[in-house]
Amino acid sequence: MSYNTFGKLFRVTTWGESHGPALGCVIDGCPPGIKFSVAEVQAYLDKRKPGQSRYTTQRREADEVKILSGVLPCDDGKELITTGTPISMMIENTDQRSKDYGNLAREYRPGHADYTYDVKYGIRDYRGGGRSSARETAARVAAGAIARKVVPNLRVRGAVIAIGAIDIDRSRWDWNEVDNNPFFTPDKIAAEKFATYLDEIRKEGSSIGAIVEIVADNVPAGLGAPIYGKLDQDIASFLMSINAVKAVEIGEGFNAARLTGEENADEMRHGENGRPVFLSNHAGGILGGISNGEPVIARFAVKPTSSILTPRRSVDVDGNNVDVVTKGRHDPCVGIRAVPVGEAMVACAIADHYLRHRGQTGRI
Amino acid sequence: MSYNTFGKLFRVTTWGESHGPALGCVIDGCPPGIKFSVAEVQAYLDKRKPGQSRYTTQRREADEVKILSGVLPCDDGKELITTGTPISMMIENTDQRSKDYGNLAREYRPGHADYTYDVKYGIRDYRGGGRSSARETAARVAAGAIARKVVPNLRVRGAVIAIGAIDIDRSRWDWNEVDNNPFFTPDKIAAEKFATYLDEIRKEGSSIGAIVEIVADNVPAGLGAPIYGKLDQDIASFLMSINAVKAVEIGEGFNAARLTGEENADEMRHGENGRPVFLSNHAGGILGGISNGEPVIARFAVKPTSSILTPRRSVDVDGNNVDVVTKGRHDPCVGIRAVPVGEAMVACAIADHYLRHRGQTGRI
Amino acid sequence: MSYNTFGKLFRVTTWGESHGPALGCVIDGCPPGIKFSVAEVQAYLDKRKPGQSRYTTQRREADEVKILSGVLPCDDGKELITTGTPISMMIENTDQRSKDYGNLAREYRPGHADYTYDVKYGIRDYRGGGRSSARETAARVAAGAIARKVVPNLRVRGAVIAIGAIDIDRSRWDWNEVDNNPFFTPDKIAAEKFATYLDEIRKEGSSIGAIVEIVADNVPAGLGAPIYGKLDQDIASFLMSINAVKAVEIGEGFNAARLTGEENADEMRHGENGRPVFLSNHAGGILGGISNGEPVIARFAVKPTSSILTPRRSVDVDGNNVDVVTKGRHDPCVGIRAVPVGEAMVACAIADHYLRHRGQTGRI
Amino acid sequence: MSYNTFGKLFRVTTWGESHGPALGCVIDGCPPGIKFSVAEVQAYLDKRKPGQSRYTTQRREADEVKILSGVLPCDDGKELITTGTPISMMIENTDQRSKDYGNLAREYRPGHADYTYDVKYGIRDYRGGGRSSARETAARVAAGAIARKVVPNLRVRGAVIAIGAIDIDRSRWDWNEVDNNPFFTPDKIAAEKFATYLDEIRKEGSSIGAIVEIVADNVPAGLGAPIYGKLDQDIASFLMSINAVKAVEIGEGFNAARLTGEENADEMRHGENGRPVFLSNHAGGILGGISNGEPVIARFAVKPTSSILTPRRSVDVDGNNVDVVTKGRHDPCVGIRAVPVGEAMVACAIADHYLRHRGQTGRI
Repeated sequence: MSYNTFGKLFRVTTWGESHGPALGCVIDGCPPGIKFSVAEVQAYLDKRKPGQSRYTTQRREADEVKILSGVLPCDDGKELITTGTPISMMIENTDQRSKDYGNLAREYRPGHADYTYDVKYGIRDYRGGGRSSARETAARVAAGAIARKVVPNLRVRGAVIAIGAIDIDRSRWDWNEVDNNPFFTPDKIAAEKFATYLDEIRKEGSSIGAIVEIVADNVPAGLGAPIYGKLDQDIASFLMSINAVKAVEIGEGFNAARLTGEENADEMRHGENGRPVFLSNHAGGILGGISNGEPVIARFAVKPTSSILTPRRSVDVDGNNVDVVTKGRHDPCVGIRAVPVGEAMVACAIADHYLRHRGQTGRI
Repeated sequence: MSYNTFGKLFRVTTWGESHGPALGCVIDGCPPGIKFSVAEVQAYLDKRKPGQSRYTTQRREADEVKILSGVLPCDDGKELITTGTPISMMIENTDQRSKDYGNLAREYRPGHADYTYDVKYGIRDYRGGGRSSARETAARVAAGAIARKVVPNLRVRGAVIAIGAIDIDRSRWDWNEVDNNPFFTPDKIAAEKFATYLDEIRKEGSSIGAIVEIVADNVPAGLGAPIYGKLDQDIASFLMSINAVKAVEIGEGFNAARLTGEENADEMRHGENGRPVFLSNHAGGILGGISNGEPVIARFAVKPTSSILTPRRSVDVDGNNVDVVTKGRHDPCVGIRAVPVGEAMVACAIADHYLRHRGQTGRI
Repeated sequence: MSYNTFGKLFRVTTWGESHGPALGCVIDGCPPGIKFSVAEVQAYLDKRKPGQSRYTTQRREADEVKILSGVLPCDDGKELITTGTPISMMIENTDQRSKDYGNLAREYRPGHADYTYDVKYGIRDYRGGGRSSARETAARVAAGAIARKVVPNLRVRGAVIAIGAIDIDRSRWDWNEVDNNPFFTPDKIAAEKFATYLDEIRKEGSSIGAIVEIVADNVPAGLGAPIYGKLDQDIASFLMSINAVKAVEIGEGFNAARLTGEENADEMRHGENGRPVFLSNHAGGILGGISNGEPVIARFAVKPTSSILTPRRSVDVDGNNVDVVTKGRHDPCVGIRAVPVGEAMVACAIADHYLRHRGQTGRI
Repeated sequence: MSYNTFGKLFRVTTWGESHGPALGCVIDGCPPGIKFSVAEVQAYLDKRKPGQSRYTTQRREADEVKILSGVLPCDDGKELITTGTPISMMIENTDQRSKDYGNLAREYRPGHADYTYDVKYGIRDYRGGGRSSARETAARVAAGAIARKVVPNLRVRGAVIAIGAIDIDRSRWDWNEVDNNPFFTPDKIAAEKFATYLDEIRKEGSSIGAIVEIVADNVPAGLGAPIYGKLDQDIASFLMSINAVKAVEIGEGFNAARLTGEENADEMRHGENGRPVFLSNHAGGILGGISNGEPVIARFAVKPTSSILTPRRSVDVDGNNVDVVTKGRHDPCVGIRAVPVGEAMVACAIADHYLRHRGQTGRI
């Protein structure tokens, strides 16, 4: 059973391969009356777009989004307004060098989905990884741009907090820095270290993993659904669906295993607006699967791409031993471009739960 | 939107609170013709059952499962056989001391779902945490017992690999040890350290977190669905839905962020049965969201329960500041009893994807 | 793929066979804060209960409902209040004469699901039809009792409008009559004709079909979702899922095929409350899949039960020709007891769409 | 909650309005390895295409389908082969005369979805009916072309069996006639009557309803899922989702209400291939929601379009009384073009259940 949809009320279906004519998504369930501009969507796509610096793939894609349905022009055509019907968005593929991938029709790249697609389907689009290409994430980013508008005042921001062995210093965290360096990192000094390190990785034709942190502010308390539609569960699911992601955590995450109940509890005190003030946020804004009004904090690990220049042992479709070198044009650290994708996925999860909460309880 | 169902073809819906008359689940979509005995299901429930050692809650529950539908007796009544219709299973609550929870009707326990349930629903079953109680996991374990039978030869085992700051030594890993100690840990020496440490925690009325690892063997290659029904995505989602879980990882998990492409790639070589041999398993058995035939490996972190004897600052339902002490009978380390639950969730995810793969492709 | 759930936000999963220990349902997604009494639910079940007159099956079932989860007592225990978590309801089977069905383990009753269950699953619960028994509809009626409370002021009523060749005279329609006769028919004189006719059918050990009409008042305008979640589509789907139903229509239904655009159009005029007044209701309250504020009107046809005393030609499980007589205790006209079931299904569809509309648009 | 997807394993999501740049669909879950040509899909679209005769709307649309993803070229580019990933198909709108609809921005056409869209969403695409336009059905027909290939040897054919008061004579039924007349009717003489009658309707600027019958041959026994995913339930749901459809029936349909158990039962006899022979098909090929191997027969009623030249009383968006005349270019009998749409929907339902049956039971 193929499954290319995420969300229950704010439902996003993506389609398209890296080397077909186009890719895109259909958003079903977006509330009516939401205003946005194509430029706003495009801005998020540009952030994810390849070729923005020497630290990402040199593939050149305009990644220009077209809105095909679900909107009407408003404000003298300056903006669009949603009508409540499906929003179809399409991004055409323009820079496809299929010849780069010629030998991959028959050889399985270690660490890639080549073998598993073949064993599952008996057929596989080997051109650029087909559906398993990170190009698919452009469609997610477009959907996320709309999702951000569904929840009033919602702000979702992401940052790279580690590349390989290099961690940022959280005491230097400055959101303003994130857009000042090609790594989306909030630590100016870490950005310099990342640059030096990734130049080295890139020259060797190697690759390296990264950790990304997503923070969502202004998430209303009450979003999430016990027990199998917990907000953290859906965030974990959505983030884990991003290419190359191998781990997800909320708030303290794995570190929570190391803490006592006293250390981990987020104490509360009387708050001004009738809602309690939390004195800490070990929970990452989610208790029992439901948002508590604090910032929602999630982190995920992105593995290094397996597209490297060093030959790796593998087999071909006939089972023969081969050594595989992946030439193509690849990101030395795919974790960097995962930042806007992670933001989009968290925004979609929150938008979905916002509508779900309103539907069941009418309390928003 | 409440959501108490997981899975798409092997669909499990759970219901029930810790202090109502009963709890249970309905399995919809189980294949017909699967034989099992009530005793087999009960054995898994007994593993999860409270009161098995001094390291788990002293609540006494028989946790006796009743099968109400979806089966016929077979083999002279020694076994049951599934008919393909919904399997309803019920476990009656027997040991409910509601008075223990009296003060919690009005006070929010820090770190619990008390506040978030109230803010979401405007009403809450405060008796033992209601739906957010870990008692709900009994229903999952019952479902998992059936799920294990869906995939031929599937074996799903779990183990505690860390409690607080104490990690096991993986070189001493022995699956046979897991059932020899009250911690479900495969390292005999770690078990001793855990005992000492948890005695201390328990005496202090404190609690501590843990890390659990689940390993599934004999998972056929080809299970999983790009892109929003990846096997690892569903495993992450299912595990994250367990009470107190704050982090999930597959294979190398967060460590993958620290590796290069050369280090992380799982190389392949010609295998005897026409399928490749993988020379390592950094991927945890899943590539591009699809199983590759290697063992599926997942880990999750369980936070310490917030039910502790040390007073914690909080508020009551009227917004007044209060200090909360949680008396009741609680697990000093809820991560221990999460082992059979984690196994069950992974078994359900694999069973679901097995049926989904068969449905779309007919290749099993 | 088994599928025993209906609804998207107000989701009902039913389970149980006619000859197992019990049957029931789980309602997931019910809003919190809805008050109801067990007696109210029981009243609807009693209406559907067998053995109420000589025109329905003489099987004797108490059909006593137990509420197992999802509620708290309120108003000094006189009522229950929903908490927003899953509501599990169970009805125990008490009057099972399995011996009545002995020969049916091997013979396929013509017109029944015996053969199709066997060909689908390779196994079948032959005792009373198993899951295909109309007993399952008790669970629907229980769910419908809650659904009616979800939409403020919603009223859903049903009536038998034809049995065999005898149609009611719509000019005599009196809702007050419906509960005065054993046929749930609003036409006093038709009730007499039905009595005479069904006495005859019953004595012959025969059976006959019927048509049921359901009318829902006070359905807010705006419920329904283009294009594959239309309100009429879901009503059609829900009604067609009832045992023995072979046809469904909305408003003019099949007669709309005979009308011109001029005849069929429901004209509108300025209304007092800012909403238009419709001058007719050919549409049955639904336009473009969305409710328009007029009464929602649906009709469905129930075939005669195939459980008759006249021998019918058939085959057994080995393919041998046999002649089948169905003894058991059966309804001469199953359409009668379908009235409360049809009401329940329409109520569930409307409740579901009410929550869905609120979720997406916030306009309720 | 918007819902623009149908099917569970063979899932189709449609998008697009009649006056946006394009419309289309995404098929998710199509099995891999299915070969088809663009020309085959186009042939079905051409059958549905407007402007084929004077009895359908004179709007001119090329309705040229583009396949954007989910396939690879095969057989030297003569055919495409599915890869198991989402198939995106797009049809550009070319002949949009938005000016025709100018006055409809403010006036509600009686019998249309204008008012209900506005009351639901507070905004509406008035250009050609937006999402409620029958143009959306082009996407369904494209999806149906692929669905037909999923089930080996499946044949799904449809026919108009009544227009207004004129019924065909079933004794003259000849499938070969269906493509020889502009009404898709199997009765040559009825075709002549339809022509005369519709010329009259058309000249008057009026419209008329119709009844369509769909017959599916070679449907394997065993498809369908008790109890809320019955094959007939899904067929009813899918057909009822088609614009202007007000009634659906299976086999005897409403007539079953008039029959006795003796008359309605489909008797069986020993068959050659180990499967029974049914001596009649009152059931329309479906028993207990599961196919029995006989032809699946469904009928649906299409109301007359409300777009007529005779002024009808209505209101505008401000609640003022107005008289509405719908000029545009409309079908005098939309039931005619509903034939290929009905075929597509039945094909999709059967394909979906084929995969679902294989998934749960592995018995295909």
